[in-house]
Amino acid sequence: MSALDMYDIIDKKKNRGTLSAEEIRYFINGVTDSTIPDYQTAALLMAIVLNGMDDEETSVLTEAMMTSGDVLDLSSLPGIKADKHSTGGVGDKTSLVLEPILAACGLTISKMSGRGLGHTGGTVDKLESIPGMKMEYSPEEFLAIAAESGIIIASQSADIAPADKKLYALRDVTATVDSIPLIASSIMSKKLACGADVIVLDVKTGSGAFMDTYEGAKTLAEKMVSIGKRAGRKVSAVITDMDQPLGRAVGNALEVKEAIETLKGIGPSDLEELCIGLGSEELLISGKTVSRKDAEAMIREAITSGKAAAKLAAMVSAQGGNADVIENTDILPKASFEKRIFADRDGYIARLECKEVGMASLLTGAGRKQKDDIIDPAAGLVLNKKVGDKVDKGDLLATLYSSSADLLDPAAERLLEAYRISDKKPSERKLIYEVIK
Amino acid sequence: MSALDMYDIIDKKKNRGTLSAEEIRYFINGVTDSTIPDYQTAALLMAIVLNGMDDEETSVLTEAMMTSGDVLDLSSLPGIKADKHSTGGVGDKTSLVLEPILAACGLTISKMSGRGLGHTGGTVDKLESIPGMKMEYSPEEFLAIAAESGIIIASQSADIAPADKKLYALRDVTATVDSIPLIASSIMSKKLACGADVIVLDVKTGSGAFMDTYEGAKTLAEKMVSIGKRAGRKVSAVITDMDQPLGRAVGNALEVKEAIETLKGIGPSDLEELCIGLGSEELLISGKTVSRKDAEAMIREAITSGKAAAKLAAMVSAQGGNADVIENTDILPKASFEKRIFADRDGYIARLECKEVGMASLLTGAGRKQKDDIIDPAAGLVLNKKVGDKVDKGDLLATLYSSSADLLDPAAERLLEAYRISDKKPSERKLIYEVIK
Repeated sequence: MSALDMYDIIDKKKNRGTLSAEEIRYFINGVTDSTIPDYQTAALLMAIVLNGMDDEETSVLTEAMMTSGDVLDLSSLPGIKADKHSTGGVGDKTSLVLEPILAACGLTISKMSGRGLGHTGGTVDKLESIPGMKMEYSPEEFLAIAAESGIIIASQSADIAPADKKLYALRDVTATVDSIPLIASSIMSKKLACGADVIVLDVKTGSGAFMDTYEGAKTLAEKMVSIGKRAGRKVSAVITDMDQPLGRAVGNALEVKEAIETLKGIGPSDLEELCIGLGSEELLISGKTVSRKDAEAMIREAITSGKAAAKLAAMVSAQGGNADVIENTDILPKASFEKRIFADRDGYIARLECKEVGMASLLTGAGRKQKDDIIDPAAGLVLNKKVGDKVDKGDLLATLYSSSADLLDPAAERLLEAYRISDKKPSERKLIYEVIK
Repeated sequence: MSALDMYDIIDKKKNRGTLSAEEIRYFINGVTDSTIPDYQTAALLMAIVLNGMDDEETSVLTEAMMTSGDVLDLSSLPGIKADKHSTGGVGDKTSLVLEPILAACGLTISKMSGRGLGHTGGTVDKLESIPGMKMEYSPEEFLAIAAESGIIIASQSADIAPADKKLYALRDVTATVDSIPLIASSIMSKKLACGADVIVLDVKTGSGAFMDTYEGAKTLAEKMVSIGKRAGRKVSAVITDMDQPLGRAVGNALEVKEAIETLKGIGPSDLEELCIGLGSEELLISGKTVSRKDAEAMIREAITSGKAAAKLAAMVSAQGGNADVIENTDILPKASFEKRIFADRDGYIARLECKEVGMASLLTGAGRKQKDDIIDPAAGLVLNKKVGDKVDKGDLLATLYSSSADLLDPAAERLLEAYRISDKKPSERKLIYEVIK
């Protein structure tokens, strides 16, 4: 066999060839140790975006990226180790609710999460709005906390899938993000490296989702489930709606507050429904229950008994945070300024555009435009009216919060653009569409 | 209008969009001044290779690359300024014969040519095998020699189409060479920048050509002619055969010798036929003659009268070379070592693979594998038998030459692999297929 060469690998994919496992590993090794120049990687990425990758190639790519860095060994932890992932959307604080519920139901949760760019911070930023909360841990500390509390959510180590990190940075500037094999392998390489036995994927569809067509979301879901199964994990994907923001709160501390309320059974119904849907899927595939009905009952009991909220308290406490937050969300950072927006006519909320809501949140200071931007943990917005709600002219639509008064006017203007009020009540959309397993 | 951004340009071409003139110029300006990183350029190149460019985009790309550097103003030169270009092949020394013929027929020849990688050097390397020959000139010197002698062939200035130079270097390592819009714009940007009024393109087809299918060659020819016409030049393309080497000599000094013989009317018939075909096309579109018959007669007269050979002598002399070479090719560098190969059976030469012949020539030292390799001007090979020739076992097939004895055995082995002898006489191929104008 002749020596492998990046030129030949690019040429093969350009000509719609199927890359061998050896070729894919050569590529990922070269990305990891920076021996392949970015321009060759960029050319291959574009060829993959346009000519695709089959299931075998995608699985090998995932595995190569997974093993480019640390692969966590969770075998020292008791019980079934469970993880979840969401492809993301506006107001998506599901992890903050779902993980304590699953821990209360007896699964072990050792989750690594991201910060990320966008309308709000990532799960890590949200949790950091709790006073005292520490998110960075060495692998040993991480495992020790998970073993003791049964739950930890920490910042993802730089040593998890470094090849994915490098590739993603390049995809982000070369318009090569939107490829199902590349998205699937990026997500799954990190999930698999984090070591869980059981993984539930929340794949969003709708106008506010990364994958905006249903077929795209379904294909991505199938691809990720297939990758996970080949790697010997129990994986299922739930396709859920992201056509308007999830829940009412968008922002870091605001979302933590809403998550706590939901754990106490007094949160928004859509967020609760989603957590029950994803959670029961997780309990089913982990073998904790044999029917969806039992799983749902177990989750409701975890909420009503207070066990789920207690798990969050234990986690916050173990991670150095002030667990009083569970009983008293007033200790979360509070914005000095707020602004309300009102309906300018009678009718029904017909649309509430995720993109505009997200942009309004970013404008309040709740998110990052660039990697080094500082987040305002208290900033964001709370939606008083959502799609389908009846409104009279002058009714409160939403309240915006910020630590800088001058950010509120442009943010409010943007949020008003997110609302469309019409005479006709819109037809209802489902929240949970389909489970792929 | 929003500011132009390379990300959006890549994204548009990825989605099969048509780039605007403004976007293409923004791209080429950024390549020229190195403000666009190579990884973004590589991603766009791959998107162009896979999703194409229409005629308008290709013309704008060509013009943007042409104006990225110097554009020669030949208006101070007398007469009609003519240029030619070949897409390249093994044994292609056409320029050395054709340009003096055209100068003898009254056209003004101011040609810039390349060195390049491959089985032999480029036209510049070939001419440099003539003792004393100088190939590098400032624009002023270049125009002065052209004005005085009516003919100059010099090394292409680094200031001609620098954007093409940068793009080509990147295409070469990212497997993005084989795209008709990219090839056409690369060739034509340089040709147009060199300022000729009349351009004849020799587009090769067959197993030894860059474009191996006839359709590919034809599409490339059409695209280049269309670009040239949009730029207001007289352009036609001749599709010619490159299924076996052209002429008998492959190597630098060896090809100069064969070119001189052809100018004296005693060269190989295929080379002569090609020069007459291309030359008569050039005389026709430049308006020097009105019929192909007249043009052919004018060329034959230039050869038999000795005027064409005299033009080469004048050019060599004006460029500091020893013009005695026209009368006495023995002053060219001679190899110290030679090796002959022989037929191992009776039959007909059925195939003579360009790629293997080229590789054999490279192995003698006649070409460059890498940019900084030193060429052996005396090295190369002379084919005694070509396709269709009858051979008896033991007949001389070819002679290889080198200044290093130990290069000859591997080169000879490779050359033997180029020959296929069979019982059946192969059907004849045409040399000139079609003129596109």
